[in-house]
Amino acid sequence: MRMVDLIQKKRDGGVLSGEELRWMVRGYAAGEIPDYQMSAMLMAIYFQGMEPEETAKLTLEMAESGETADLSGIKGVKADKHSTGGVGDKTTLIVAPVVAACGIRVAKMSGRGLGHTGGTLDKLESIPGFQISIDRQRFFDIVNDCGLSVIGQTGNLVPADKKLYALRDVTGTVNSIPLIASSIMSKKLAAGSDCIVLDVKTGSGAFMKTLEDSRRLAGEMVSIGKHAGRKVAAVITDMDVPLGAAVGNALEVAEAVRTLKGKGPKDLEEVSLVLAARMLSLAGKGDFEASRKMAEQALKDGSAFACLKKMVQAQGGDSAYLEEPERFPAASCSAVLEAPEEGFVSHMDTEGCGTAAMLLGAGRATKEDSIDYSAGILLYRKYGDFVHKGEPLAALYAADEKKLAEGKERLARSYRLGKTSPAARPLIYDTIL
Amino acid sequence: MRMVDLIQKKRDGGVLSGEELRWMVRGYAAGEIPDYQMSAMLMAIYFQGMEPEETAKLTLEMAESGETADLSGIKGVKADKHSTGGVGDKTTLIVAPVVAACGIRVAKMSGRGLGHTGGTLDKLESIPGFQISIDRQRFFDIVNDCGLSVIGQTGNLVPADKKLYALRDVTGTVNSIPLIASSIMSKKLAAGSDCIVLDVKTGSGAFMKTLEDSRRLAGEMVSIGKHAGRKVAAVITDMDVPLGAAVGNALEVAEAVRTLKGKGPKDLEEVSLVLAARMLSLAGKGDFEASRKMAEQALKDGSAFACLKKMVQAQGGDSAYLEEPERFPAASCSAVLEAPEEGFVSHMDTEGCGTAAMLLGAGRATKEDSIDYSAGILLYRKYGDFVHKGEPLAALYAADEKKLAEGKERLARSYRLGKTSPAARPLIYDTIL
Repeated sequence: MRMVDLIQKKRDGGVLSGEELRWMVRGYAAGEIPDYQMSAMLMAIYFQGMEPEETAKLTLEMAESGETADLSGIKGVKADKHSTGGVGDKTTLIVAPVVAACGIRVAKMSGRGLGHTGGTLDKLESIPGFQISIDRQRFFDIVNDCGLSVIGQTGNLVPADKKLYALRDVTGTVNSIPLIASSIMSKKLAAGSDCIVLDVKTGSGAFMKTLEDSRRLAGEMVSIGKHAGRKVAAVITDMDVPLGAAVGNALEVAEAVRTLKGKGPKDLEEVSLVLAARMLSLAGKGDFEASRKMAEQALKDGSAFACLKKMVQAQGGDSAYLEEPERFPAASCSAVLEAPEEGFVSHMDTEGCGTAAMLLGAGRATKEDSIDYSAGILLYRKYGDFVHKGEPLAALYAADEKKLAEGKERLARSYRLGKTSPAARPLIYDTIL
Repeated sequence: MRMVDLIQKKRDGGVLSGEELRWMVRGYAAGEIPDYQMSAMLMAIYFQGMEPEETAKLTLEMAESGETADLSGIKGVKADKHSTGGVGDKTTLIVAPVVAACGIRVAKMSGRGLGHTGGTLDKLESIPGFQISIDRQRFFDIVNDCGLSVIGQTGNLVPADKKLYALRDVTGTVNSIPLIASSIMSKKLAAGSDCIVLDVKTGSGAFMKTLEDSRRLAGEMVSIGKHAGRKVAAVITDMDVPLGAAVGNALEVAEAVRTLKGKGPKDLEEVSLVLAARMLSLAGKGDFEASRKMAEQALKDGSAFACLKKMVQAQGGDSAYLEEPERFPAASCSAVLEAPEEGFVSHMDTEGCGTAAMLLGAGRATKEDSIDYSAGILLYRKYGDFVHKGEPLAALYAADEKKLAEGKERLARSYRLGKTSPAARPLIYDTIL
């Protein structure tokens, strides 16, 4: 087999066979196929796309390019979730304990934030003492004991994706739906859970800005999961507006705790309940309505919060911070963004809000940047809210005045005020099973 | 400037500016832009194309990426020709002496054959003693003295094209008309002639199989030449049928000599006269008709043949082989391909004929292969000719029986016989000025 022939086949709109994809993924992971051929292939895929079955085969080959997690040491059904990334998206901190409290295991490998989106690992690390590097046996023990554990990726999982992703990043081939779907799903398949719920974000703060693209991505990922014999569902949720009020690591942990205690923002609670119910339903806990009732109960009776607390303790974290979130150290500097005029919040550039949080110190511009856990934003007014001139739209937190000014300027540009109340937006657009 | 931004711009259908193209070509030639980014750019160009002005700017930057030939040491107007490559295409051996005999200088750097097409250098080297590596001053002296010289490429001409061509070859990005046009024209511009006539071949033995693609390539190349301030014309000529009767190096030299003596095949003579007349006309020798009469006269009065002979002598070749082509050593083995039934030759797979000649030893499958100058084919019947069952279609020549059998099998598959006389085909399709 010659790579140039495969490139030409794809360039001309052909469908790569399972054998061809296997040869290509293995050859690339082994360094036998050079980057310059793979990048031409990626660009050809960008233009010609891939058939659903072709994408599924590519994904399975990628998933098998390295180690795969064997979760058989964990008793019971294992469920996983994945979010395509957004601003203020702390749902894992709520959904995972809810699902665990209902008896389904969540053995989750999570990631860090980059650019305008946050990452669950960074949020958990804002809890003093919390460890994300844990060996396999201890990880299994924690899941068996607490019902859940969230750690950083271990071992040599999906090396083909690591290499491909780095190449896509510098060759203009990131925004290809089959490539995005195969990248996400190869990691989810390698991570070993039986049931996978995908939270596909859509809108100005998401990677997929249009509902059409979000639907396509969701459809591709569900198709891949089914080809791989997993139980999988995708929920398309709104990211045209930040989720909840808190953006920034410790601020988001505090908000997740409030939500687990039934006192969180309604949008965050609703999205979390839908995702948790979908996971429980996939895991065989009953239909969606019954599962949702179970999830609501786990919030109400405090069992979900107890699961989170137990996991944080098991992973070395100081759970006093969960009991009393006011213990989180305050940022050195803060400011309030005031409404420049009266009106309704008619649009939020949610990617802009995320970038503002990054500028404040809550996120990373590059992988090497460090994070200020206390930095971030509390949004007082969101899409559809009315505000008088001079009333606070948001509070901002940073380590110094320079960062504060930069973040405030960026956040100010992300709000648009209008004279009339804008049309209501759905929180959940669709579910793809 | 970042290469990933330029890739994305082209990927999304944007037009690269002169500044961007300059930065890219220089950066790539200098090794600062890696192959894996350039191959993604090439694939994006493959899909999105380039505007004519954009292609012209790219070509000029490529032409200037290394040395450019300064032909000011040669007196008078310099004309060059380029063929996109075909089977039996020995026109340079006829056209260059004709043009030189009419007082226009031809200082030509030529190439070797690869795959199913031959190269002028290989043909000339079949003349014992002929040297193609000649230093600049001697090259100029020969042109000044004989009116023409044909040598191998010297110096570091168009290093960007060398690098790009090698990359295109392994990344499925060869067949892009702007990339083909810029590759050819960057070399022609760097080679320094004032007037350039492009022989764009079309049909089953050409790189451009369709008239539409041939027209597009011709148009692109003429547009580039004009942007660069050169006098340029493209003639689209037939390559659905091999040109002349001889395919193979010494066989073709002998046929070129016959043509210069007025005894060659009519198709070869006609294409050669049209190309020569177009060069003379561009070089200011009068309108096309007057130029054609001059070219015919140079054949008739033997002055063109005298120019070729003088050049061969000046470059160390034994001109006795031109006077008596029967001196060329005969191949060890020969065979005749007989018509399996009676009929008209209704189609020739001309690329197949070229491949047959290559299998006989007349060409190279890879750049490293050596050439057997006496190997090749003499076609007795071509498109439109009638043949009785058992009559010879062609004679084949090779160094051993194995090659002979392989070439014969391939040539047999290239002939198609039909019951009725096929429609006549034009020899010259169009001229683009």
